[in-house]
Amino acid sequence: MTPKEVLATMLEKDEFTKWLGLKIDKIESGYCSLHFKVKKEMLNGFHSIHGGVIFSASDSALAFAANSHGSIAVALDVSITFTKPAKEGDVLYVEAKENHLGNKTALYDIQTKDSEGNLIALFKGTVYRTGKEIVKNQI
Amino acid sequence: MTPKEVLATMLEKDEFTKWLGLKIDKIESGYCSLHFKVKKEMLNGFHSIHGGVIFSASDSALAFAANSHGSIAVALDVSITFTKPAKEGDVLYVEAKENHLGNKTALYDIQTKDSEGNLIALFKGTVYRTGKEIVKNQI
Amino acid sequence: MTPKEVLATMLEKDEFTKWLGLKIDKIESGYCSLHFKVKKEMLNGFHSIHGGVIFSASDSALAFAANSHGSIAVALDVSITFTKPAKEGDVLYVEAKENHLGNKTALYDIQTKDSEGNLIALFKGTVYRTGKEIVKNQI
Amino acid sequence: MTPKEVLATMLEKDEFTKWLGLKIDKIESGYCSLHFKVKKEMLNGFHSIHGGVIFSASDSALAFAANSHGSIAVALDVSITFTKPAKEGDVLYVEAKENHLGNKTALYDIQTKDSEGNLIALFKGTVYRTGKEIVKNQI
Repeated sequence: MTPKEVLATMLEKDEFTKWLGLKIDKIESGYCSLHFKVKKEMLNGFHSIHGGVIFSASDSALAFAANSHGSIAVALDVSITFTKPAKEGDVLYVEAKENHLGNKTALYDIQTKDSEGNLIALFKGTVYRTGKEIVKNQI
Repeated sequence: MTPKEVLATMLEKDEFTKWLGLKIDKIESGYCSLHFKVKKEMLNGFHSIHGGVIFSASDSALAFAANSHGSIAVALDVSITFTKPAKEGDVLYVEAKENHLGNKTALYDIQTKDSEGNLIALFKGTVYRTGKEIVKNQI
Repeated sequence: MTPKEVLATMLEKDEFTKWLGLKIDKIESGYCSLHFKVKKEMLNGFHSIHGGVIFSASDSALAFAANSHGSIAVALDVSITFTKPAKEGDVLYVEAKENHLGNKTALYDIQTKDSEGNLIALFKGTVYRTGKEIVKNQI
Repeated sequence: MTPKEVLATMLEKDEFTKWLGLKIDKIESGYCSLHFKVKKEMLNGFHSIHGGVIFSASDSALAFAANSHGSIAVALDVSITFTKPAKEGDVLYVEAKENHLGNKTALYDIQTKDSEGNLIALFKGTVYRTGKEIVKNQI
């Protein structure tokens, strides 16, 4: 399967990515960029975007990049640093790049920026590569 | 304000916590426990709970514990390790404990477990304490 | 091999642990506690213990706890939070506990405290379990 | 003070950096690159470089980059991922880049590579900026 076919298979049943309203801009082997708009349901009690939403969009980008090689990869460890809040209506751009592709694990760097290019959060994620092939009818 | 009053003030406008369906079990100074049920909209493309949802529930527990002292605290750095997947219908229990309370920063440990006590994820979060008092009418 | 035999085998050639002057207090399956004294060579330019020394002692405790099961485990991802500085002459106590033991990975929590019980650093480490048995003559 | 003057002041008393044998290649505002040779005393029980040594060299690079602005910055949270072991005699290259410079905190990305350009470890560090000026005679 190509990275685009894997993505299509994954997106078909990914209910949370649908809820988040993620729009995929580019998918390649080991790479994914996407964007989304901050909506009211994504705010915390201080009128800022909930940190969990930024994490979730980054985690989706990680999943799409890490699974693009055609075998199932699951997030193991993630570290995220929040540098700037975002508000309702902001459009956020998320980009996942592969830093290392090993046999059993792989490492990704995911940056979230606002429309002016300010860094909102930096996400570093390690995945465990299960070795199981992604098959369209099985997931 | 007491920890309970702070929580009530935060929850009033926390749209994402509402969407997640988080039920607060206990709130004290530097402590919060809560639970929620995994619903269909929380699943990823592999029929498991999206890692972002586990992070989000943990991040909410962190926020409630860290703000319980009455001054605004914002998440700075978080590290999360995923140890076991969860499925639709599972009830997950999240517990946030304070490991260190400094003048400018504080450190929390948040565990997510399933109903049988299995560890689902371990979250370690550092917050920056802004020193701004939480006031009911201002947020 | 028992946890004590594994430890003895590992310590025999562990030059850096020797340099650090780590004294093992207790070793059990999935557990290790040790202590050491902060010496002049461990200081940074601000007369405090170098963060790398605290990390190193924690990382050694992680290695002893994670390898105690008799198969080789290597550190994959670590997150450390520094909460309080330490000075020359301080004795630091490091305790590694197993939070999760999976087939391929395991998760440990390592706390470093001073002699008054103040938290100096909190270390969360994930190891990859290679499945290779530790044999006395091979390492 | 210029970045070079700050570095000279810090190095004067940094005993652990001396022990590690770190050679500074470049220092600029928010940036530092250095290299060092893996010596016998840096090995763990498996004949590989101890993870603590890689962390320590990265942490020194972080300190030099973060303090280059002339005010004291202390490491708060660090996440490190180990991707490849190194052996005695290897020369390792460490590069610290500033990802974000805020008023109270700043964020750095530190990569360690071997002489062939293979990634050995990826280190993400957040510092707390104390606001205290670095003065030559005070440290």
